Amino acid sequence: MRLILIGFGNVGKALLRSLIDKRNPLNRLGLRPRIVAVLDRGGGAVDPDGLDPAELLRTDEREGTVAAAPEVGQFGLSPLTAIKEVEAEIVLELTTTNPDTGEPGISHVEAALRNGRHVITTNKGPPALAMRTLQNLAELNNVEFRFSGTVGGGTPILEFVKQIAKVDILSLKAILNGTTNYILTQMYDFEASIEEALKKAQRLGYAEKDPSLDIYGIDSALKLTIISNYALDQEIALNEIHVTGINDVTLEEVRRYKRKGQKLKLVCSIDKEATVSPQPIEASQPICVDGSLNSVQLETRYTGKVTLIGPGAGGYPTASAIINDLLALEGKEQGAKRVLTTEMAGIRVN
Amino acid sequence: MRLILIGFGNVGKALLRSLIDKRNPLNRLGLRPRIVAVLDRGGGAVDPDGLDPAELLRTDEREGTVAAAPEVGQFGLSPLTAIKEVEAEIVLELTTTNPDTGEPGISHVEAALRNGRHVITTNKGPPALAMRTLQNLAELNNVEFRFSGTVGGGTPILEFVKQIAKVDILSLKAILNGTTNYILTQMYDFEASIEEALKKAQRLGYAEKDPSLDIYGIDSALKLTIISNYALDQEIALNEIHVTGINDVTLEEVRRYKRKGQKLKLVCSIDKEATVSPQPIEASQPICVDGSLNSVQLETRYTGKVTLIGPGAGGYPTASAIINDLLALEGKEQGAKRVLTTEMAGIRVN
Repeated sequence: MRLILIGFGNVGKALLRSLIDKRNPLNRLGLRPRIVAVLDRGGGAVDPDGLDPAELLRTDEREGTVAAAPEVGQFGLSPLTAIKEVEAEIVLELTTTNPDTGEPGISHVEAALRNGRHVITTNKGPPALAMRTLQNLAELNNVEFRFSGTVGGGTPILEFVKQIAKVDILSLKAILNGTTNYILTQMYDFEASIEEALKKAQRLGYAEKDPSLDIYGIDSALKLTIISNYALDQEIALNEIHVTGINDVTLEEVRRYKRKGQKLKLVCSIDKEATVSPQPIEASQPICVDGSLNSVQLETRYTGKVTLIGPGAGGYPTASAIINDLLALEGKEQGAKRVLTTEMAGIRVN
Repeated sequence: MRLILIGFGNVGKALLRSLIDKRNPLNRLGLRPRIVAVLDRGGGAVDPDGLDPAELLRTDEREGTVAAAPEVGQFGLSPLTAIKEVEAEIVLELTTTNPDTGEPGISHVEAALRNGRHVITTNKGPPALAMRTLQNLAELNNVEFRFSGTVGGGTPILEFVKQIAKVDILSLKAILNGTTNYILTQMYDFEASIEEALKKAQRLGYAEKDPSLDIYGIDSALKLTIISNYALDQEIALNEIHVTGINDVTLEEVRRYKRKGQKLKLVCSIDKEATVSPQPIEASQPICVDGSLNSVQLETRYTGKVTLIGPGAGGYPTASAIINDLLALEGKEQGAKRVLTTEMAGIRVN
């Protein structure tokens, strides 16, 4: 399998390090993905025979862009050019989420699918804002559009919800944003103000310099949209979700609930409607996780409440979700081979 | 799909009540399983046109056996006769677990598979003591052997572990027995002695009259065997597991750990070896569930710790696991149809 990586941040780097690690499950199955192109903001590096992951990591570390790689580096190479012109079976779209337009992620995914390439993305924009369109496009081109890493990092929340939903779901509650959960946990445990807690989160790398996507609940809403459309088969648009962030949460409020045995959490929920808002939860409930953990609780008619808990983000966990998607694509390899053979024979026209 | 039910206890009754409920997912998909035979200790009731679930429940309630059903009841009908002679696609083996021999469950499952019928069981004996043999037999006869309800009631522990294991598992820890967990929780919360807690569990129906399978850890060990063989692909025999029950746990011990912020739990674990034994767990850990909940925590190389929590037993949850298995069989229907057509044409010889 030949891969094109669009975007080379935390996740891309963790993926390359995981691929180098001989214990990764692809290696154990004898699958050796060949990375034929890596693109970042400076341009890209391309080699049809496969780039050396260790060399790419060193170049990026030293020069700040893979475009500086000796012999294979191309300053200014555009993602769309690479997606269309470099031969590969799979495009990994790993650019940053843009919650307003989904761009340039959506254009990257579209171009890849139209060119008969599978897509795996960790960018929440494309599945949250254009899932149906992109799924249809994938089907039309006989390829797959996968995005396990967009929700729950390496914790398989999407597949879990989808599996339970096959039988029956009455309602869903979830904590899907590690940054706000870390902040609320700091406020609860150490009586920190929201400003102090945010600063600490930024210092430790749990929050970005501009934390507004997290704080205002947008990141949670994007994830809830993806869960609803993918796993619950309940079509919902991002702007239909009622969103309240943690920006107005005060230490006084956190203390008041604490006295009642409750913790204030940024809760995503779906029953009659979909909402994201700070809600008190009994501290003893399984869903009530602390720190940067994620959790999702499903209530079903016959089983009762079932809860999944795990780390919600991070380079390596998210890279493991990509590896999971790569393994799933392997299962579809046979069908894909037919398309690719035709394409390589030059019969396929875009 | 035509079903034969062998055994008509809690789970069988909950299943019939779920099937009557129009909101069950089979109904929603337009699938109406026809129950052609139900067997209990007194005999059975058989009707190739389909028995009325409500009528069966009433007869059992009134007479203590479905064999007393007017017109269709047959006192003394044996399970093996029904399995071999009543035409049906699926046999549900719902008899009680025998941890020593697995009988009569194993014989029922074998007979059903040899007769080209799919098997769904909630009896831990067959998968814990003869999984490989029965799986091979199923494959040979082009049918399925399923047992989702044997671990975790309606909480999909087996599928969850299998999915994560595809990528990577370093170790597994689980609380798989609701009865002992209820007892330990009573001791922790109310400072009850183990005898008092057991009596309360029996009064509320959480523990059986003879609770030894639970108390001595055998039930947990059976479940751990099933997880290891099915989901981890790690072949292990029941007697290879190091088992210590909760029988020697004292209130003093529970108190001592409580002072350290820990709860004593009957923990099943697999890393280098497989064990079941009372272990202290930090009360703040997600895996540390109370009451009759089950939990399973997997540690993976890249993702970290992922935990699944849900009700571990009960008629309705376990019936929902059977419904899940029925839905999964529907997916294989096409393959099965070929076998069944041949069989009905009388070409197939056993």
